[in-house]
Amino acid sequence: MPRKPADATLDPGRRARIGLDEAIFCAGKSPQQIAAIVATLTGTKKAALLTRLDPARFADLPAGTQRLLSYDPLSATAVCGRAARASKARPAVAVVTAGTSDLPVAREAAATLRYYGVGVSEIADVGVAGLWRLTVRLDEIRRHKVVIAAAGMDAALPSVLGGLVAAPVIAVPTSVGYGVAAGGHTALNAALASCAPGVVVVNIDNGYGAACAALRILNRTKRGARWRGV
Amino acid sequence: MPRKPADATLDPGRRARIGLDEAIFCAGKSPQQIAAIVATLTGTKKAALLTRLDPARFADLPAGTQRLLSYDPLSATAVCGRAARASKARPAVAVVTAGTSDLPVAREAAATLRYYGVGVSEIADVGVAGLWRLTVRLDEIRRHKVVIAAAGMDAALPSVLGGLVAAPVIAVPTSVGYGVAAGGHTALNAALASCAPGVVVVNIDNGYGAACAALRILNRTKRGARWRGV
Amino acid sequence: MPRKPADATLDPGRRARIGLDEAIFCAGKSPQQIAAIVATLTGTKKAALLTRLDPARFADLPAGTQRLLSYDPLSATAVCGRAARASKARPAVAVVTAGTSDLPVAREAAATLRYYGVGVSEIADVGVAGLWRLTVRLDEIRRHKVVIAAAGMDAALPSVLGGLVAAPVIAVPTSVGYGVAAGGHTALNAALASCAPGVVVVNIDNGYGAACAALRILNRTKRGARWRGV
Amino acid sequence: MPRKPADATLDPGRRARIGLDEAIFCAGKSPQQIAAIVATLTGTKKAALLTRLDPARFADLPAGTQRLLSYDPLSATAVCGRAARASKARPAVAVVTAGTSDLPVAREAAATLRYYGVGVSEIADVGVAGLWRLTVRLDEIRRHKVVIAAAGMDAALPSVLGGLVAAPVIAVPTSVGYGVAAGGHTALNAALASCAPGVVVVNIDNGYGAACAALRILNRTKRGARWRGV
Amino acid sequence: MPRKPADATLDPGRRARIGLDEAIFCAGKSPQQIAAIVATLTGTKKAALLTRLDPARFADLPAGTQRLLSYDPLSATAVCGRAARASKARPAVAVVTAGTSDLPVAREAAATLRYYGVGVSEIADVGVAGLWRLTVRLDEIRRHKVVIAAAGMDAALPSVLGGLVAAPVIAVPTSVGYGVAAGGHTALNAALASCAPGVVVVNIDNGYGAACAALRILNRTKRGARWRGV
Amino acid sequence: MPRKPADATLDPGRRARIGLDEAIFCAGKSPQQIAAIVATLTGTKKAALLTRLDPARFADLPAGTQRLLSYDPLSATAVCGRAARASKARPAVAVVTAGTSDLPVAREAAATLRYYGVGVSEIADVGVAGLWRLTVRLDEIRRHKVVIAAAGMDAALPSVLGGLVAAPVIAVPTSVGYGVAAGGHTALNAALASCAPGVVVVNIDNGYGAACAALRILNRTKRGARWRGV
Amino acid sequence: MPRKPADATLDPGRRARIGLDEAIFCAGKSPQQIAAIVATLTGTKKAALLTRLDPARFADLPAGTQRLLSYDPLSATAVCGRAARASKARPAVAVVTAGTSDLPVAREAAATLRYYGVGVSEIADVGVAGLWRLTVRLDEIRRHKVVIAAAGMDAALPSVLGGLVAAPVIAVPTSVGYGVAAGGHTALNAALASCAPGVVVVNIDNGYGAACAALRILNRTKRGARWRGV
Amino acid sequence: MPRKPADATLDPGRRARIGLDEAIFCAGKSPQQIAAIVATLTGTKKAALLTRLDPARFADLPAGTQRLLSYDPLSATAVCGRAARASKARPAVAVVTAGTSDLPVAREAAATLRYYGVGVSEIADVGVAGLWRLTVRLDEIRRHKVVIAAAGMDAALPSVLGGLVAAPVIAVPTSVGYGVAAGGHTALNAALASCAPGVVVVNIDNGYGAACAALRILNRTKRGARWRGV
Repeated sequence: MPRKPADATLDPGRRARIGLDEAIFCAGKSPQQIAAIVATLTGTKKAALLTRLDPARFADLPAGTQRLLSYDPLSATAVCGRAARASKARPAVAVVTAGTSDLPVAREAAATLRYYGVGVSEIADVGVAGLWRLTVRLDEIRRHKVVIAAAGMDAALPSVLGGLVAAPVIAVPTSVGYGVAAGGHTALNAALASCAPGVVVVNIDNGYGAACAALRILNRTKRGARWRGV
Repeated sequence: MPRKPADATLDPGRRARIGLDEAIFCAGKSPQQIAAIVATLTGTKKAALLTRLDPARFADLPAGTQRLLSYDPLSATAVCGRAARASKARPAVAVVTAGTSDLPVAREAAATLRYYGVGVSEIADVGVAGLWRLTVRLDEIRRHKVVIAAAGMDAALPSVLGGLVAAPVIAVPTSVGYGVAAGGHTALNAALASCAPGVVVVNIDNGYGAACAALRILNRTKRGARWRGV
Repeated sequence: MPRKPADATLDPGRRARIGLDEAIFCAGKSPQQIAAIVATLTGTKKAALLTRLDPARFADLPAGTQRLLSYDPLSATAVCGRAARASKARPAVAVVTAGTSDLPVAREAAATLRYYGVGVSEIADVGVAGLWRLTVRLDEIRRHKVVIAAAGMDAALPSVLGGLVAAPVIAVPTSVGYGVAAGGHTALNAALASCAPGVVVVNIDNGYGAACAALRILNRTKRGARWRGV
Repeated sequence: MPRKPADATLDPGRRARIGLDEAIFCAGKSPQQIAAIVATLTGTKKAALLTRLDPARFADLPAGTQRLLSYDPLSATAVCGRAARASKARPAVAVVTAGTSDLPVAREAAATLRYYGVGVSEIADVGVAGLWRLTVRLDEIRRHKVVIAAAGMDAALPSVLGGLVAAPVIAVPTSVGYGVAAGGHTALNAALASCAPGVVVVNIDNGYGAACAALRILNRTKRGARWRGV
Repeated sequence: MPRKPADATLDPGRRARIGLDEAIFCAGKSPQQIAAIVATLTGTKKAALLTRLDPARFADLPAGTQRLLSYDPLSATAVCGRAARASKARPAVAVVTAGTSDLPVAREAAATLRYYGVGVSEIADVGVAGLWRLTVRLDEIRRHKVVIAAAGMDAALPSVLGGLVAAPVIAVPTSVGYGVAAGGHTALNAALASCAPGVVVVNIDNGYGAACAALRILNRTKRGARWRGV
Repeated sequence: MPRKPADATLDPGRRARIGLDEAIFCAGKSPQQIAAIVATLTGTKKAALLTRLDPARFADLPAGTQRLLSYDPLSATAVCGRAARASKARPAVAVVTAGTSDLPVAREAAATLRYYGVGVSEIADVGVAGLWRLTVRLDEIRRHKVVIAAAGMDAALPSVLGGLVAAPVIAVPTSVGYGVAAGGHTALNAALASCAPGVVVVNIDNGYGAACAALRILNRTKRGARWRGV
Repeated sequence: MPRKPADATLDPGRRARIGLDEAIFCAGKSPQQIAAIVATLTGTKKAALLTRLDPARFADLPAGTQRLLSYDPLSATAVCGRAARASKARPAVAVVTAGTSDLPVAREAAATLRYYGVGVSEIADVGVAGLWRLTVRLDEIRRHKVVIAAAGMDAALPSVLGGLVAAPVIAVPTSVGYGVAAGGHTALNAALASCAPGVVVVNIDNGYGAACAALRILNRTKRGARWRGV
Repeated sequence: MPRKPADATLDPGRRARIGLDEAIFCAGKSPQQIAAIVATLTGTKKAALLTRLDPARFADLPAGTQRLLSYDPLSATAVCGRAARASKARPAVAVVTAGTSDLPVAREAAATLRYYGVGVSEIADVGVAGLWRLTVRLDEIRRHKVVIAAAGMDAALPSVLGGLVAAPVIAVPTSVGYGVAAGGHTALNAALASCAPGVVVVNIDNGYGAACAALRILNRTKRGARWRGV
């Protein structure tokens, strides 16, 4: 019989090294694997963020596991071990979406930021087909330290935002759309080819990654950062 | 010895059939072939538009041929047989560009429209990285019957225009840009995936085609169209 | 607890601005979201067009919502608030399809036009494999102000039409086909590379967008247009 | 010093095996290599076809080599060892082109057929933008045993032909065009996705291959084929 | 209420025009539509071939319709109106497959040929990974007038065959494979780039089209062809 | 009635010829076909490896067939005819994975190697996001004759390994990931473009092929290879 | 004669709006256009950065224009109006390259940062094929506020860096490489699919954009930012 | 003035670590940079391999540098510091090419192997269009420990070889061809999708990488390997 290998090698020092915890990416993991991870985490008293845990997969988890998780179906995220605390401080990050259908991706970014105690303002459905929807909220958006812009289809929103705000703009292309937009590659390429200088981009539908990028920026801004050598 | 074939089959009835003359697409034709065509056209007293005649190729034409042509190097177009007449009427088409480097494509559209006696307003370098450049000229743009928008890179301009003006908006993606924008496919796909309803698109760098589409629209609008069966 | 964001930002002034209402794109919206939108619209006494509402999703709507909608399963569209009125005038738009399987896309275009009271002639299954099917109906097609051509596979139909009619030709590539045709990209590229001058193109399967483009053209043609600054 | 390898392994039995000689593909070969091959062929008294020998490369050949070749610059082909004989018989193959710029590819097909003594009719510039140009010559085209159709851009010609003639139709997509047509992939895919049944396709710009396919067909038709085992 | 359009325009003269009947492509048609077509055909006493009728769709047809069809699940084809007659003559076409999983595509070609009364030899699973499997059957393959080669993955089979047999070789790339082979594009491109001269190619999985191409060739070969002008 | 063709042509001499048995690739085969093959194999007393036999397909097999197979659901492989023997010797191959989700592909490689009696060490979840996980196990990895590295997403692992170990490194890109990583093409291209010299690559998710490549290497290393001419 | 349009619309308020000056992108501009822009800028006493000014184009500029520019051929950048001032402060940004050939892109980033007075450390040729080259300089890299990583080919460097440093990591994929790496798309996709959380990406070869992103981050970090509304 | 960075970080321990020297990749390096590297190497008395040094670039090197190099124009490689020694032993590697035009890539592989003193047999122009050319040399090929197969176009050669020889087969796809073959991606994908088990692949035109892979295999086979930890 083949010897049983260890399926995973945890990275407990990641927070100390780069300021971010290892998140549990649930796509492609069985309910049993997820339940085992949650059980382990509960034993260590450590909190953790679970991503890409869609409702069907959450429903397949044992009831005992479900009770340990604070689950949000729209973003397909869950927090294990403690509820997400709303930050008392002024929201540091604005998460802006072009359309209603970009919300799951935007909410994944927001859930990740809230897991770390960072306040978030969600500004939804302000795509450029009705430009006034964006311009009436510009002053509000400008009050944040970082802007995350989630947009599918032609992804004109990050370019327009990048020309109007001085903050770092992180574009998250989404897979919203059909025909040439299907899969999000047009949104991705449009964001990369943006005519506005200094817009940065993450992978399609990667709200989690956009939030991590924002956290790297915010961690740098903080007085008295707690990591060695930072 | 192989028998000599006729290289071309002219389509003299095209104007009567669809309202547009056959244009002479010069890319891939030798100076001798172009000179022969111009000689033929001069003999028939008919005017003609030559496109994709870049300066190097124009310089290679016989001096006699050059004298018969009214040549514009920026748009790489020439008119044979009569000078382009500026229309007295209010310009019917606005040709808007996102950047200075989109001008050759925009000028090809303008030259085509002027060949047919249609007035054109050129509104250059009003891309969305500095959105005010577009909004200060919106009233001017809205006074035209058709809007042609030439843009490369992320091509956010046609989407923004499509959300702000009621006229037909014809997007011409351009091959301006590098990396993911090289070749114009990102601009093309962004225009096709536009979040603004009813924006139509032509091939990359196809200023001539955008003008022809505008002419089809304007021909329909005219009182007492002159073609049979229309 | 995270604050509840507003999921949508309506654009009620769109009709006054660009002559087109905001349509409800149902793909990716839950039955609850659609029901809520319909309820709101009924309250405001405003009509609305719903697109991409496939039969399975329609069946999942609450019975009360279903009763408020005039639903067409082939085009996956619905009208809320008033029945579509057939125009008394001569049909202004011909919607031509290459094959029977292009009908859902063509019907989306037709349903959109009828929502705005524009008369439509549907001319189905006249692809170029049997060219006589098209030529026997050319005089009929030429009597319309705008031609929409829906075709998948090699999309030769828009090119042939563009060489035969003077009206604006709007090509809608469809995702009909398999192998290299799967997804509609071959049809899209063939329409963009059309040898017929002035054919314009919209996104794959975007019957709605083709209709909106036709409406922009027709709105321009109308005497006494009702929008300010138009 | 590394040992000198033999650069080529000739295949003299190919004609007996498959009815076709090995042709000399000159792209990527140095003038010295081509001269050496021609010298060898002259020694063996065998004729040979050289393809992809563009004018610049032909000009670089030694004068002695040039004299041994019957060269055609448009098709970039040459025949070594005997002049191509025009067939006395009725032309068996019609080579039809959509535009003038498809001629180099079409002529490569014609030159290959003539090398084998097969008669060819060239029917140029009959693309579907002016459909009458094709229909007036249909009876002429139908008199041939095989039809080769060379077309770039949207390559609508092979589909239209395939619906009108009963003969085998071999589509040769060409790299003529720009934007989405650049490189010939749109023409290739359109020909493969043809709505006309039984159209076959060869590689982009492969006039030589189309002719070889026609030869395979004609060889099968001949009474008393001369190859063993056929 | 919108007027009811005719969904289809039949092409009854296709056989007289190009030697091939219109086939009923069932993918994307509802059971009701297929049943209606079969009822019509039965009324006219004409036979017809149905393709892409997969078992699930066949099972959904009304029992009365099913009884009128001679159905083959592997090739997903059916014949309406008369049983396919096996040709008494020596098989004219060899359908060769690289692997067992290419059989559905190969069988579609065979079913099409048999519908027209053409004899077929099926030679299965002779891909080049075990080259002897092909070479031991070469003499058998060479006895046919046309060779159809169905292969997925790297599609080396058509190239090897094209170098060994003189007959026309029609390559049908199949979508068999995973990773870079998924979808059949690698097989398609390999067949188009074949180093063997004169191999022709049809769309991915298009067994029907390969058979139609073979029929065009065979029809040409027949003494006393029955179509006018042929 | 069409004659019944033989669906498969076995290649029993493959082991003698290239040192590898023919494996049964189950994707695309029906339960009946698989059962028939297993029955045949059992009759010949020969062992065989079955790949791509996913749990749903295994469950559909007749109970009698299931009993003859030693099945592993994670790798979707089965062995027919004898249990896989664990090698007594020191493991010759290290199968290293970047993440837990690469395990099915890695296990397919391991199962293939064990079928041939080759010992395997599995070293899981040592991707470069936590580089120490790899470096602490380098000495262990270096003790193997061949290294197989399975990685999806950006596939940085094979490059890092290739710069640290002298053994042959066979990269297996996996389809793990989303957005630009979906399908495994980014991992494939990154492995092919590796900055570390001499890394070789197999098709996406092709753990079986990676193992076969390792076997070709190990077979060469063995004293007294048993194949003729080797 | 056509009316002369204004070719450009300057955006002088960009610095006040988003903290970044408009840069002069010289690719596609004629020497005359560049000279005119430099003359204008000199008149206004404002400094400006010119990018993509390759040596051949610089050599074509009038001598008078050349004297007004401080030119760097490696990065193809120039500064007009004042010399770039080296920052006295500790360098805020580390620009790290995988190979020597990534230097032009890295230097464009550095030149942009120095134009704004930001100190830069360049750490060259530390790609992962020799991992020790990176690890010996980790402490040095960690002392910077932002890290820019320029890498072509498989772009493993940003992933490794993202797992080792807490600072924002901006990946600039470069077009260095051949085969699948040609053009930089593999590097781009690998960076987007990075297994390290929070790595952000800009367009291929876009050193300028990476610097602008870093400036947006640094501007946010500064005490007493000088722009209104920020 | 910006501080002068070091452009390169040498990796002198690479041979000890992975058995391979760092090679000097000359594409994209200036003659001055190459001259400087050669001067440095000459000083250290170490030999080195230079790759991608095409004849034009070699001609631009200072005469003094040229004299220090043993240059081969076909493979675009040079050896610095000592002449390549021909191995006395039986050649260990067979480098097989499909066509004459694949020779530059094959020769790069051979030159790399000879730099390390490994004997090479070159077997040219044995592509499958004339299969006998390969089969007559099979016994010769089988006498080598490793087989490198360079092929462009449809790259059927590696598959056929992989089914006939037991040795490791390393496929090097080449960019030879036009149309769908241009750039080598079809050859690459065909090699990756090979139906022969255990064929491994390197990047397009990467003869150097194929040789390095062969060296990794041969180094493993050698008795008494000289690197620590191997």
